[in-house]
Amino acid sequence: MTSVRNRRIILSSRPESLPTEANYSMTEAEVPVPGEGGVLARILMLSIDPAMRGWVLETPNYAPPVPVGDVMRGFGVAEVVESKSSKYQVGDIVTAMTGWQEWCVLTDDNIQRRVDPSHAPISTSLGVLGVTGITAYVGMVEIGKPTAGSTAVVSTAAGSVGSAAGQLAALHGARTVGLTGSDEKVRMCLDEFGFDAAINYKTSKNLAADLAAACPDGIDVYFDSVGGEMLDAVLENITIGARIAICGTISMLANDIPMGRRIERKLLVQRALMQGYLASDHYDRAEEIANKMAHWIQSGQLKYREEISPRLEDAPAALVRMLEGENLGKSAVRVAFSDAETN
Amino acid sequence: MTSVRNRRIILSSRPESLPTEANYSMTEAEVPVPGEGGVLARILMLSIDPAMRGWVLETPNYAPPVPVGDVMRGFGVAEVVESKSSKYQVGDIVTAMTGWQEWCVLTDDNIQRRVDPSHAPISTSLGVLGVTGITAYVGMVEIGKPTAGSTAVVSTAAGSVGSAAGQLAALHGARTVGLTGSDEKVRMCLDEFGFDAAINYKTSKNLAADLAAACPDGIDVYFDSVGGEMLDAVLENITIGARIAICGTISMLANDIPMGRRIERKLLVQRALMQGYLASDHYDRAEEIANKMAHWIQSGQLKYREEISPRLEDAPAALVRMLEGENLGKSAVRVAFSDAETN
Repeated sequence: MTSVRNRRIILSSRPESLPTEANYSMTEAEVPVPGEGGVLARILMLSIDPAMRGWVLETPNYAPPVPVGDVMRGFGVAEVVESKSSKYQVGDIVTAMTGWQEWCVLTDDNIQRRVDPSHAPISTSLGVLGVTGITAYVGMVEIGKPTAGSTAVVSTAAGSVGSAAGQLAALHGARTVGLTGSDEKVRMCLDEFGFDAAINYKTSKNLAADLAAACPDGIDVYFDSVGGEMLDAVLENITIGARIAICGTISMLANDIPMGRRIERKLLVQRALMQGYLASDHYDRAEEIANKMAHWIQSGQLKYREEISPRLEDAPAALVRMLEGENLGKSAVRVAFSDAETN
Repeated sequence: MTSVRNRRIILSSRPESLPTEANYSMTEAEVPVPGEGGVLARILMLSIDPAMRGWVLETPNYAPPVPVGDVMRGFGVAEVVESKSSKYQVGDIVTAMTGWQEWCVLTDDNIQRRVDPSHAPISTSLGVLGVTGITAYVGMVEIGKPTAGSTAVVSTAAGSVGSAAGQLAALHGARTVGLTGSDEKVRMCLDEFGFDAAINYKTSKNLAADLAAACPDGIDVYFDSVGGEMLDAVLENITIGARIAICGTISMLANDIPMGRRIERKLLVQRALMQGYLASDHYDRAEEIANKMAHWIQSGQLKYREEISPRLEDAPAALVRMLEGENLGKSAVRVAFSDAETN
């Protein structure tokens, strides 16, 4: 009999709006046992994502609420340590919805993809070669369709998704303008991620006017993770035929939709397209998109930044920090190390 | 020297919101003389269209405002009576922006297409084989993409565009639900245009609930000419991956955009697409789309209704009637007859 226990972070109470550290607590349970076709996986790293804000609320949206008392839902990368699957072997490194814990049982169905740890640091499987990359690619390339000479504006531009989206637009020949929340992040956008211009929306006195100045030919593509008044300011500057990819709505809570200026007439007059999408609808393309992103990383055309907290118990604080916009780069939490990690 | 004069209806004052008959007056001018490459055309019929509401307002939108004192802008069908064009001959029947008058000069560039009067009544060139058809086809078929077994909801469903849009959805295998403003129009939707269900939104006490009842599998496609609270009620019922074609926003004026519930989060959660479009962007495809629509008319799969006022001076009243939703069928005004009309 093993003495190893499974430390897990549960949602101990439901936040009214943004989650705090007090909504989480650490518990222990037995290490789970895989059934036929399943694997036992040791979790190496956890991804901290904006969507978590919605997952812990009472109101269901695109995922049912995490029940109070359950392990916090989360994406992670894990190593197979015991296998009753014909598809995955001991030693395989895989991404999946693992939850905030040390061990989990996975099946062929809920493993997203196998990760090659010699290819890139395993953290990238949660970021630019994982959900971050899918989110940026589908929204910017497939909905936004940036073309040479067009202008693409990106919200949360210094963040993991936004910085990738901006660089993808530039790779397609667009002029890129980032919206971000501090002067430090403005510098990151310009110096690290190669945006042609960047605006600190928190210090802007008139965002629509500042966007007009930064986008003299108008805005052809908007990669929107924010919604609300920032979207309104962008809409005042869109060109005919503009495309707006709705990747997130961090300015509003699922159960508290604000009022705003109606947008349907603007979409009509500008013959504009607005489309919401979720990366999770495209997980079956994870391999294809990761290969594209890896190519651009290796050629030096796509840069990313990470912020990795060192312990499982740091996950709630990392989430709060991300939701407050304090993180610089893709946020992840280290849970354990694998011998297979050579980077 | 001819004694024929050109009777024309000018916009004599600018309405504050909806135009009234008092905003128009009849004047006379010389019959214009075509220059090299132009034709003189005798106008046979004028089309009365919802977009006219926006054209007469101060605020420019997708077309500049009609200047006060100018002939009212309008689409029409006309017969060439004198030609200095190498492309159009005397006797040709053509559609173009003719304005509200009896005679006009046209050029190769502003003629939309040649009409065969033996093919169908010339009125259809202003309707289901003209801008009405382009509007219905692009919005329903190309943006809405109705599929077999899907549910398509159409606003202003008894109108010329809406009735065509609904039938196009049915032709593609969709279940169709019409929204319209009177019990008489509900019956027209069901009995004449073959909608599977129709709702009188004016007498509905809870439109979102009535739509839910009429669309038990949710709404996959919405053909929207209205915007505003009707759109909100539809959005409450959209399926994942829904498509919303914004064809018009008759619930709101260009210079008075109301506030409403923000929609970007709904688009995100439902991974829905909303796209504005204008028929005028697709006039180069008028022939192609007219041929498709004519095929469905000839096979009995596409029905249309017209309401034709008998004299040029009826145009302002016809416009007011249409904007009040009183017309039954495509609204047009007869100005003159051609010998070429055999139907």
